[in-house]
Amino acid sequence: MTDHVCSPGCNHHSHIGENEKGEFAAGKEKVFSNISKGSIAAAANCRDIAALKANNFEEGKHYYIPAHKDTVTWGYFSYSQPPVVKINSGDFATIETLTHHSGDDYERMIKGDPGAESVFHWTKDEKNIDRRGAGPVDSPIGSGAGVGPHICTGPVYIEDAEPGDVLEVRILDVVQRPSFNPEFAGKAFGSNAAANWGFQYNDLLGGVPREIITVYELDALEQIAWAKAVYNYKWTTQTDPYGVDHATIDYPGVIVNHDTVDKNFDVLKGFRVPVRPHFGTISVAPKEQEVVSTTPPNYNGGNIDNWRIGKGATIFLPVSVAGALFQVGDPHASQGDSELCGTAIECSLTGKFQFVLHKQKDLSGTKLDGLKSPLLETKDEWVVHGFSYANYLSDLEDSNTIYQKSSVDLAMRDAFRKTREFLMTAKGLTEDEAMSLMSIGVDFGITQVVDGNWGVHAIIKKGMFPG
Amino acid sequence: MTDHVCSPGCNHHSHIGENEKGEFAAGKEKVFSNISKGSIAAAANCRDIAALKANNFEEGKHYYIPAHKDTVTWGYFSYSQPPVVKINSGDFATIETLTHHSGDDYERMIKGDPGAESVFHWTKDEKNIDRRGAGPVDSPIGSGAGVGPHICTGPVYIEDAEPGDVLEVRILDVVQRPSFNPEFAGKAFGSNAAANWGFQYNDLLGGVPREIITVYELDALEQIAWAKAVYNYKWTTQTDPYGVDHATIDYPGVIVNHDTVDKNFDVLKGFRVPVRPHFGTISVAPKEQEVVSTTPPNYNGGNIDNWRIGKGATIFLPVSVAGALFQVGDPHASQGDSELCGTAIECSLTGKFQFVLHKQKDLSGTKLDGLKSPLLETKDEWVVHGFSYANYLSDLEDSNTIYQKSSVDLAMRDAFRKTREFLMTAKGLTEDEAMSLMSIGVDFGITQVVDGNWGVHAIIKKGMFPG
Repeated sequence: MTDHVCSPGCNHHSHIGENEKGEFAAGKEKVFSNISKGSIAAAANCRDIAALKANNFEEGKHYYIPAHKDTVTWGYFSYSQPPVVKINSGDFATIETLTHHSGDDYERMIKGDPGAESVFHWTKDEKNIDRRGAGPVDSPIGSGAGVGPHICTGPVYIEDAEPGDVLEVRILDVVQRPSFNPEFAGKAFGSNAAANWGFQYNDLLGGVPREIITVYELDALEQIAWAKAVYNYKWTTQTDPYGVDHATIDYPGVIVNHDTVDKNFDVLKGFRVPVRPHFGTISVAPKEQEVVSTTPPNYNGGNIDNWRIGKGATIFLPVSVAGALFQVGDPHASQGDSELCGTAIECSLTGKFQFVLHKQKDLSGTKLDGLKSPLLETKDEWVVHGFSYANYLSDLEDSNTIYQKSSVDLAMRDAFRKTREFLMTAKGLTEDEAMSLMSIGVDFGITQVVDGNWGVHAIIKKGMFPG
Repeated sequence: MTDHVCSPGCNHHSHIGENEKGEFAAGKEKVFSNISKGSIAAAANCRDIAALKANNFEEGKHYYIPAHKDTVTWGYFSYSQPPVVKINSGDFATIETLTHHSGDDYERMIKGDPGAESVFHWTKDEKNIDRRGAGPVDSPIGSGAGVGPHICTGPVYIEDAEPGDVLEVRILDVVQRPSFNPEFAGKAFGSNAAANWGFQYNDLLGGVPREIITVYELDALEQIAWAKAVYNYKWTTQTDPYGVDHATIDYPGVIVNHDTVDKNFDVLKGFRVPVRPHFGTISVAPKEQEVVSTTPPNYNGGNIDNWRIGKGATIFLPVSVAGALFQVGDPHASQGDSELCGTAIECSLTGKFQFVLHKQKDLSGTKLDGLKSPLLETKDEWVVHGFSYANYLSDLEDSNTIYQKSSVDLAMRDAFRKTREFLMTAKGLTEDEAMSLMSIGVDFGITQVVDGNWGVHAIIKKGMFPG
């Protein structure tokens, strides 16, 4: 980003979307104003933002993709999934995303919200989204077996995207989705589940496994930059509308019956958790299998669960199917590196994105040459993502065994190799230079230890590079 | 730190040493002035700082411990090591530390420096410090066998310290040790070794292991906050004064004969590595064995290699032998989380410390109650340290096998358990509260993967706690 002198009209990263950002900010102000006045239903999902300029901005078209039953997949990616929209490189999209944990508190996170109600609707006679997960559709616990729990909006088809290309996704803005329930006007909510797939589950004091839901409150007007706990409860067996009992959190979208749980409001009193809104899952479709669980992150992105994938960040994803088939979901209000107990503050968000396609033929000699994993750029850093297996879908004989092979050690090995490659490819270093720089100036952190294909990321400060 | 209202004369962390800090700053200015004028030998080791106020300050005595052959141990800790000084709780000490990698560039890092020359002095007839490491004293590669390479100054005996107490060590200031060679006036230097114990060593492109030394230059006047590479070279077999060949970096303090290496000055041109001066090794003596290698960090501290252990930080260490026997060394100018290639920018530093003893009987109900591992406090964070083995000296049948059992996965497990304990003990949380907070607001990072007992640290932001 430093070998370029800006001139009027240039296409430089920091300029693109300047008009857009202005419009978006104006839209947000209007939405906030409406929320303040109590006009929840009309304004809360931020659709006003899209209407500001008739879907057509200077730099590209602007699409609005609401979250409802026809615009999301639940728990899986698939190269055969029909896209919800086809766009061109340079276009913008504002995309609503819903947390799959909304059912932990129906009153605060679903009630009155047309998008959430559409997606979560499930009675004994009607289940708006039947398949939830990449598992068997005839599973006794529910279609898809919950093998992959994340609601992901899309796919978005990028015209002309082909295997070997790289899709650049710029996250221009992120807003929290306010509660649609007038009782909670002006607030947003998220749920944290200390779940059976968490790092702590079989290592609890006393040795008896349990799952704990903690509901957090946020300021939908974004005047308060921290979340506070409202209450917590221990998960009890929940019976879904089809009559199946769920003794643990094993199937997404089951609405918790609050008559069956014991809510404790004396939780983390006075604690303030800094808000870091981001998308846990951001992906293009993988090519290896037709239906792939959203849970393990992989070369194509997916459930990376890095809290740095928020406003102002750009992610580069290697395309492996025609149209790329971009999806985003698993929105988080805040998460720590490791996502220790299995989840973040799972909180519905709306994001504003711009998509830029880099064709394979143009990659030679650039930082994207040969990109084989999700690469993140923030204002001050490059972030390289390593996983226990760089591509578990092809590295493992049986990709379902990834959950038995989770390892931070392996993820560290992968992150090391990828960081070396980045420094040598993108920055032209020798291996010896890369080794030294990695040891004295690159920070390796633990992204997550809860998603099957565990993650280690390397943070490379841009300020180290020659100006 | 928040349940206290300051009053005049109070003993609060942020006040203690205020006079001291002023004196130290004045001393530094004087030293810098002398360096600028070319008065290297007299001023460079910062001893002027100690002379400013006759070793006696308001809050406690101030000792000065230069680094020379009689004030350091090389490569081991021992509860039977005679202390270089006995001090009281509340006292201050300015302590010189030398990097054991100084021999990588004798001209820049040893020549003319009375402390370094005293420690590194080794001819065929005389070796000022014979034992280097916890290995056999009759090892064919040299006494101590290099099992533990770090030069550590001390021990400092703290009067009245007993097993079960906690020693608080406040790092009030850190300065780089300037080169004593007039040719390099005003500069400081450090060496980075991509070494045989590095994470990369058996995973190099091409598959042929090699060790690379990169020498970095720093501004001893601290007007420039970044380091730059000067040159690098591939390690060649070095013959020590006793005639032993060292084909790899297997014994510390061997002066590299620059006639045998091929120096490459075209290295990391234009790159700027932010300086993070800190002490890689900071420790009290362990009780389990009489002579213990400095390499694997452990419950008593040691070679933690966390770059946050620098100016302004405070570390709490559990005491397990009478007098605590504090030692510090392995100074670094900069390091990344993971210390990937085996070393940091290894650069001699001088630190100003204050020691506060917390007696076991006073710990009940405090954050230090039952402390079993090094706990770090910075201005904004608590940092908990996990290791592959919480106490490898007692956890392993044969403690020498730690190098075969290094694991980030195990270190993550240990860091998780210790962080839970910290949040429950120091902050009074329930396990459920601790689980949730750890997942949404605590960042787990990889401290190092090169010291046998690998490390994972948890960063807990103080701002989350009730005010």
